[in-house]
Amino acid sequence: MLGARGGWRALRRCSSLPRAVRLRVREALGAREPAEAVRVQGWVRSVRSQKEVLFLHINDGSSLESLQVVADPSLEKRDLTFGSAVEVQGKLVKSPHKMQNMELQAETIHVVGPCDIWSFPLKMRERHPLEYVRQFPHLRCRNNTLGALLRIRSEATASIHSFFQDNGYVHIHTPIITSNDCEGAGELFQIETSREEKESVEKSHFFNVPAFLTVSGQLHLEVMAGISYSEAVEILKQAPQTFTFKPEWGCDLQTEHEKYLVKHCGEVPVFVVNYPYDLKPFYMRDNEDGPQHTVAAVDLLVPGVGELCGGSLREERLPFLESRLQRLGLTDAYQWYLDLRKFGSVPHGGFGMGFERYLQYILGVDNIKDVIPFPRFSHSCLL
Amino acid sequence: MLGARGGWRALRRCSSLPRAVRLRVREALGAREPAEAVRVQGWVRSVRSQKEVLFLHINDGSSLESLQVVADPSLEKRDLTFGSAVEVQGKLVKSPHKMQNMELQAETIHVVGPCDIWSFPLKMRERHPLEYVRQFPHLRCRNNTLGALLRIRSEATASIHSFFQDNGYVHIHTPIITSNDCEGAGELFQIETSREEKESVEKSHFFNVPAFLTVSGQLHLEVMAGISYSEAVEILKQAPQTFTFKPEWGCDLQTEHEKYLVKHCGEVPVFVVNYPYDLKPFYMRDNEDGPQHTVAAVDLLVPGVGELCGGSLREERLPFLESRLQRLGLTDAYQWYLDLRKFGSVPHGGFGMGFERYLQYILGVDNIKDVIPFPRFSHSCLL
Repeated sequence: MLGARGGWRALRRCSSLPRAVRLRVREALGAREPAEAVRVQGWVRSVRSQKEVLFLHINDGSSLESLQVVADPSLEKRDLTFGSAVEVQGKLVKSPHKMQNMELQAETIHVVGPCDIWSFPLKMRERHPLEYVRQFPHLRCRNNTLGALLRIRSEATASIHSFFQDNGYVHIHTPIITSNDCEGAGELFQIETSREEKESVEKSHFFNVPAFLTVSGQLHLEVMAGISYSEAVEILKQAPQTFTFKPEWGCDLQTEHEKYLVKHCGEVPVFVVNYPYDLKPFYMRDNEDGPQHTVAAVDLLVPGVGELCGGSLREERLPFLESRLQRLGLTDAYQWYLDLRKFGSVPHGGFGMGFERYLQYILGVDNIKDVIPFPRFSHSCLL
Repeated sequence: MLGARGGWRALRRCSSLPRAVRLRVREALGAREPAEAVRVQGWVRSVRSQKEVLFLHINDGSSLESLQVVADPSLEKRDLTFGSAVEVQGKLVKSPHKMQNMELQAETIHVVGPCDIWSFPLKMRERHPLEYVRQFPHLRCRNNTLGALLRIRSEATASIHSFFQDNGYVHIHTPIITSNDCEGAGELFQIETSREEKESVEKSHFFNVPAFLTVSGQLHLEVMAGISYSEAVEILKQAPQTFTFKPEWGCDLQTEHEKYLVKHCGEVPVFVVNYPYDLKPFYMRDNEDGPQHTVAAVDLLVPGVGELCGGSLREERLPFLESRLQRLGLTDAYQWYLDLRKFGSVPHGGFGMGFERYLQYILGVDNIKDVIPFPRFSHSCLL
């Protein structure tokens, strides 16, 4: 196991050896008592060098507020700049300034990772607009606003999952690759191996059939609704992969469907229940009470952010569905969908929530790209 | 709002009007006292018609055990068969049989969804092997074993997420579409719009660059590690979309990498830390203490189920990475990766867990397809 030993030695080099008590910035700021021999790690947010004293502000992401470090000017070095990663060891003392509770009197300052400030796009004490930060997808989580948005996104994800789990739902990972064209939109991304891509004539597909990136997990959730009678409610787009990838190309999508929604959207959230027949997929129920040639659907619209969530009333009558599928030439492809209604079907329904639009709505963020860790849209697939 | 009213009327038709107290099968089985006027919904698991009495067993997915229903033979009807969905109303009474606590004395039995038993592939009182059930991806969640596996999968997902959330990690949704070839394997699925697919010459890509289905979120998590100094640990494959989709084509993958692992796998879990240089991506640290031409990595192998999780020790030295990328002709594509090391980099590491392999391991399931809701593999993309 010589190799293993070598690996462990390398591993050990990655971590710092324990010395003084390590505190996070939030813990240091909230400490009630002074403390000897603490160490704090973080990125330098500001450096102010005076004749008698060197001031630093460091932040490790645990708090929006930074910790003030007071040091002797002799500790200053060339690579102790804004943006560099440092480890400061010293004494935590009550701060004489009103603005903060505690400050760190540095004994040693170790620059863990220097920062080339001349080319670093984030600048000291500058409030960069979101449009500017968006240009640097690999660095934007170091920006306060983006960091906060990503944390809230994480918390919101966890809360939504907890809600469903606490209410007895089963979390299903719906597939990303599908051979269905669920919405009937016909505007899907096709998936091919590099080999297939080259041999454009007489293809043999990897999956035997043409495969696509799905735009919805709703048919798959409808299948899985059979796991439990009274949990037979679809959790559309709640399966994380659905609310994860949809925005990847949803950002600048202006489909007929969306235009229709926008047109019918007033000043307050409204429900739109009549959809033009041609814009909705085969499984939707005919709207018997409403205007002719419409299907039944429910959409909650929120002004400014477009559609927040939508649900549909599914057609359950087998003969009706059979004839509709036949007209569309889809009987073979959707035999499984007919089967679901043939073998002990139960009433069920669901709704879909646009997770990113929800985040925009609660946070007041104008551009959907700013609430997505790595947005993808036409002409852009950065990182 | 005539349309809306029509929609609500349709919605109301979907749900049953409240009558007797609705109990889940689990609640009925666990009841301490008899009760008048209860109703239970579920699928019929068995029908036994005797001269004097009709016995049903119904199950709604809330318990592995079914509830016995005792009824007058006059309540039997043609479509009251195995597999049908029913609502039974009646009295909950102490059962005279030792095997069960409570039973339901039916007053009415309503067949909500009949089942065509002649073509229904699941048969009454039969223990279908997993290989058989696998042929019916749209019905297999109605099978006890598959239903249980999916529930455990859901609980395991929630527990893993809770663990990371409780320990201060930020959950990042890494993208599914990427322009990177992270593992350097060159065996990615390419993504194209239908339009691109047709115009095989002189393409203009939707994303401007060729785009692929990613095989790993690790580089993206490395970017996001900058959100917090002490949370600067990558949660490889913990972002649900990574552990969601990877199995979609990982099932029968037998790469050089996997073969290497299998070869070095003994009778007990072992750590393999020396990888052949050519099999590992550019960012891995050279294994200075180990055999030559190897890179440092840690893999936890479990006999029988292959690799469970693996981590890597990242090369942090900028000049070293620069020269390696230059040799591979990747300097432009990975300038952002160099940037991460140029602007206040901190020591960080991570590991990846094969979520499906973990499920196989704890559940003793031989075939990975049985722990995935909708498995995708070569020659198969069902539903």
